[in-house]
Amino acid sequence: MITTALFVAAPGAPALPTPIARRELRPDDVDVRVTFCGVCHSDLHALRTPPAQGGVFPLVPGHEFVGEVVAVGSNVVDFAPGDPVAVGNIVDSCGTCRMCERGQENFCAEFPTLTYGGRDRVDGSATAGAWAGRYVVRDRFVYHRPTALDAAAVAPLMCAGITVWEPMRAAGVGQGTRLGVVGLGGLGHLAVRLARALGAEVTVFTTSPEKAADAERLGASHVVVSSDAEAMDAATGSLDLILDTVAVEHDLAPYLRVLDLDGELFTLGFLGQVTIAATDLLIGRKRLASGGSGGHRWTQDLLDFCGEHGIVADVEVLPATEVGTSLERLARGDVRYRFVLDLRDIDQHR
Amino acid sequence: MITTALFVAAPGAPALPTPIARRELRPDDVDVRVTFCGVCHSDLHALRTPPAQGGVFPLVPGHEFVGEVVAVGSNVVDFAPGDPVAVGNIVDSCGTCRMCERGQENFCAEFPTLTYGGRDRVDGSATAGAWAGRYVVRDRFVYHRPTALDAAAVAPLMCAGITVWEPMRAAGVGQGTRLGVVGLGGLGHLAVRLARALGAEVTVFTTSPEKAADAERLGASHVVVSSDAEAMDAATGSLDLILDTVAVEHDLAPYLRVLDLDGELFTLGFLGQVTIAATDLLIGRKRLASGGSGGHRWTQDLLDFCGEHGIVADVEVLPATEVGTSLERLARGDVRYRFVLDLRDIDQHR
Repeated sequence: MITTALFVAAPGAPALPTPIARRELRPDDVDVRVTFCGVCHSDLHALRTPPAQGGVFPLVPGHEFVGEVVAVGSNVVDFAPGDPVAVGNIVDSCGTCRMCERGQENFCAEFPTLTYGGRDRVDGSATAGAWAGRYVVRDRFVYHRPTALDAAAVAPLMCAGITVWEPMRAAGVGQGTRLGVVGLGGLGHLAVRLARALGAEVTVFTTSPEKAADAERLGASHVVVSSDAEAMDAATGSLDLILDTVAVEHDLAPYLRVLDLDGELFTLGFLGQVTIAATDLLIGRKRLASGGSGGHRWTQDLLDFCGEHGIVADVEVLPATEVGTSLERLARGDVRYRFVLDLRDIDQHR
Repeated sequence: MITTALFVAAPGAPALPTPIARRELRPDDVDVRVTFCGVCHSDLHALRTPPAQGGVFPLVPGHEFVGEVVAVGSNVVDFAPGDPVAVGNIVDSCGTCRMCERGQENFCAEFPTLTYGGRDRVDGSATAGAWAGRYVVRDRFVYHRPTALDAAAVAPLMCAGITVWEPMRAAGVGQGTRLGVVGLGGLGHLAVRLARALGAEVTVFTTSPEKAADAERLGASHVVVSSDAEAMDAATGSLDLILDTVAVEHDLAPYLRVLDLDGELFTLGFLGQVTIAATDLLIGRKRLASGGSGGHRWTQDLLDFCGEHGIVADVEVLPATEVGTSLERLARGDVRYRFVLDLRDIDQHR
């Protein structure tokens, strides 16, 4: 099958509508008509990384999307044509390692197959992402999407959402958990909403005082401007769990200090190397952890929870033709809180 | 009161028996006749640190000791003359912060008063350690010692023991916990014994193949020589908790890899700055933590547990006059597994 995709030939090149081939359905495949797909920081990163530094080109980005099932392979029993679905950044994994067995395919011992920039485990072809009219994906990595929710605003749940949801589930966030969220962006704003819905008392740390009102609208009980030393001091030892969503290198010590005894700090923006003073962990027996993406174990759980609680992302929907604008504005942080591309018509203009 | 202490005038100077003054008893004080005191790596560190780098001299080391109560202050109700007791490396704390309230005086917001090299919170005098005939200590930091256990071999429980015990209790080690111990020394050998008695399945990681038999004698089910890449690979993802007791800088990544999903790595040897790749934490959602010393919450618990299970340290007891030998041999790792000084006669030779 041929579909139209936003195709990027080389680092810095524009994303241009281009016909690409999708594989014929295997017995366990689902053919999805993509309707909306989010624009994630990691797309920006992938688009800017030259091959010499590990970049993969040509490239079709897009790894948090929603759509409807067009057709299914002969062995697929969980999906039927017309079903509203969602897919994230993992489309296959070994399926047999200890991590896959526990539904943590994001930690697959053989590394999961990424939705784009990966390599198909069956035919060895490069995977092309969901900034496209259609996507063909193994059934295990397709999820049922609650139809009561705005479809475009569901898309970011599949990457930004699951990235903050996994540590919350792993840490058992619930009624009364004192949870901090560092950074109010694509991940952070979902973390606030989800934590609040779980019953947590949420504190947002931000460098932007003007985001305070928004943080409260999303469900935060407290907002701390992280450059305010007095406010940071006052917060010492007050939280059980912190989700740090900042994706650039920064000092973790101030956030470790804000944790109470046995508290955990999860860094969710990819930080490369992390350096900390052992004492900052030692005093109060704090734990440092890291996270990103998610597995089967908690992805359907997240969608079901969002359906029950009416939770979606705050999105700005742009037509596929304005993908360049979305990337430029994302690069300078001008988005509240996630761009989503409308891909419903992309195949009609081929 | 005057007692004889092993007094060190300056970095590198010998520890010489010297009369020093102990304070008159306050209402909440306990006067302890010291019988045995351990020789800890941190003693070596303190003795070698010049004042320009934070060293405190003159110095009387010694912070894991046992003895008998000689006299008690007017308000002391938990101890009476003749009681067998033990004291660790903390002799006071603010008592009112959130950490002290929870019996985690090792994390006191105002920093605990250390058994030596600290400053008394009442009169501001420098604290002098327990390589001495007598020690006067606030009752809250005195613990009842099981008399069924060899007194000399109990002393190391008060620093080495509680340092490994706290993370085990915090992590809920019990029947079937898959626990790793890195380094078989003063801390490590106690970690193996204690974990085994809690029902854990213990794996020891060591650079010294000749320690394998000893690890098994202490209760380890598996021994991995950490330089054996194949054995390390085979251990990938196999443990729930690792206590890393190595006190020199080393790569933590190999031990993070040995952890299973949601596993925890505690570094217990003081490491200064720690640098890790965020990916090594991310894959498998590992937690990095640090520990050292212990608070009231679990110290009596440790002594009671050791009493019930007949657990003590493997010690080599030396007369106080041979303190120099113990330090030299400790510096080159020639000890299995803890030196303890016999201080019973030190006051008679004054």
